[in-house]
Amino acid sequence: MKLATYLVDDRISFGAVTDDGIVDLGSRLDEVDDLKGLIAAGVDRAADVVASTPPDLATDAVHLLPPIPNPGAMWCAGINTHSHFAEAGARMGFQELPKDPMFFLRAANTLVGSGEPIEKPKLEPAFDYEGEIAVVIGERCRNVTVDDAWGHIAGYSCFNDGSARQYQRRGFQVTTGKNGYHSAGFGPWLVTADELAPADLSLETRVNGELRQRMAIDDLIFSFADLISHISEVTWLEPGDVLVTGSPEGAGALREPPTFLGEGDVVEVEVAGIGTLTNAVEEQRL
Amino acid sequence: MKLATYLVDDRISFGAVTDDGIVDLGSRLDEVDDLKGLIAAGVDRAADVVASTPPDLATDAVHLLPPIPNPGAMWCAGINTHSHFAEAGARMGFQELPKDPMFFLRAANTLVGSGEPIEKPKLEPAFDYEGEIAVVIGERCRNVTVDDAWGHIAGYSCFNDGSARQYQRRGFQVTTGKNGYHSAGFGPWLVTADELAPADLSLETRVNGELRQRMAIDDLIFSFADLISHISEVTWLEPGDVLVTGSPEGAGALREPPTFLGEGDVVEVEVAGIGTLTNAVEEQRL
Repeated sequence: MKLATYLVDDRISFGAVTDDGIVDLGSRLDEVDDLKGLIAAGVDRAADVVASTPPDLATDAVHLLPPIPNPGAMWCAGINTHSHFAEAGARMGFQELPKDPMFFLRAANTLVGSGEPIEKPKLEPAFDYEGEIAVVIGERCRNVTVDDAWGHIAGYSCFNDGSARQYQRRGFQVTTGKNGYHSAGFGPWLVTADELAPADLSLETRVNGELRQRMAIDDLIFSFADLISHISEVTWLEPGDVLVTGSPEGAGALREPPTFLGEGDVVEVEVAGIGTLTNAVEEQRL
Repeated sequence: MKLATYLVDDRISFGAVTDDGIVDLGSRLDEVDDLKGLIAAGVDRAADVVASTPPDLATDAVHLLPPIPNPGAMWCAGINTHSHFAEAGARMGFQELPKDPMFFLRAANTLVGSGEPIEKPKLEPAFDYEGEIAVVIGERCRNVTVDDAWGHIAGYSCFNDGSARQYQRRGFQVTTGKNGYHSAGFGPWLVTADELAPADLSLETRVNGELRQRMAIDDLIFSFADLISHISEVTWLEPGDVLVTGSPEGAGALREPPTFLGEGDVVEVEVAGIGTLTNAVEEQRL
């Protein structure tokens, strides 16, 4: 299933996106409040409803929101592709491939859905894209092995880890540059894990239609399961928690010459089998 | 006022802690769901209730939770005291005082209240304390000046930024080591900003009664207002968001010889005018 969160008639709801439109689940599954709740309860309970119900809404009649607008935690892997390590690792002081994954966290208010604008902070001259695959956790887990970790994935989505490079490089932590309000695109929806083979996933990032990043899944240094297993050593992962798994080479900061995003630029992150996340860039107004 | 969040009769509520006991506000202020909601609505509406109502509960009849168990974001400043910079800055590669504050984020599930155990991750040999002052945001704000930032503070609390040093030092981001499940103490309550002069705040950290850290507020490199102003350049701060503002010299990792926390150790963080946050250390069971 493709599961989306959206605004319709000024009401937040969630549902399944089919070829013929959206089957609204928010109005039918009284026992869950949102897509995170559905994941915690088990997405299986939606499948019967979707199979037996004609669509309620045209897909273009809703305003998409991030599939999980309110993750309990959002763990983002840094320097997690061979291609990005090759272009940037030495410059960042790494002599060899990292032995452990590295993470930063994003706050929930950094997220927008597909079709919403991402915001460039007013004082940031170097706002940049990073196309990535997002993994959504399906079951509460702690200390899971890499083999078991695959079974804890609810689904996958596209992510644009919009990065304020100047803020990111101040100090030794990237936090401020990775937590601009509405700086990241997440969507358009979540595709449940049963419908995708992770080994076949691939990604493209385009800016104004021009190809900027291309990634096959074997570019990842640490697999989705490696990341889950590692995080779960120190904490419980919960249903609806989000992992942003790493961007390949080709972000604007590392192009020659560097090129950054400005008002009106349109960033697309497409993952085959999921769909395309589209966000135009808007300058911060306030 | 001292505002606390707590469990009583297996129900989560919040109230004002007075010399004679707790005035439960959760049962009286129907229009707000929790302490974060009260802060967003304005803590003034609680003052009349507290002034005219005898206490409902003995203070020791409740099980304290973090005053804000569910912050929208929790921004933690790293290397933000002169004393900690002096003991650790050179070792960490800093030639001079940082020009901008540095932050990491914590997820909400890293928090416990005063009286609850903090958890040492199973594979971490070097679990450590860091006594700090927590600032809770009172009003939604963006791009606030340093002068204006003071007016956006709802109140203050004590914080123990429990740190898994080995995880913290893997890779170039401290995230994993700062996000152990239940690794941080936060409490015992929030003291509203009208009752404290920030310039007078001072802190002590004790382990099993032994003094380990002492800080006067002028040890901070970036003031509370500096931190708020800086973060607000890139994002909206929201009512109930938490800033953890920096620890002084004296954490276990930098003692000679280094000394770390184990099962049964008791960490106290006392801030004059607020109270004492107390957490025993527990080994991770699972």
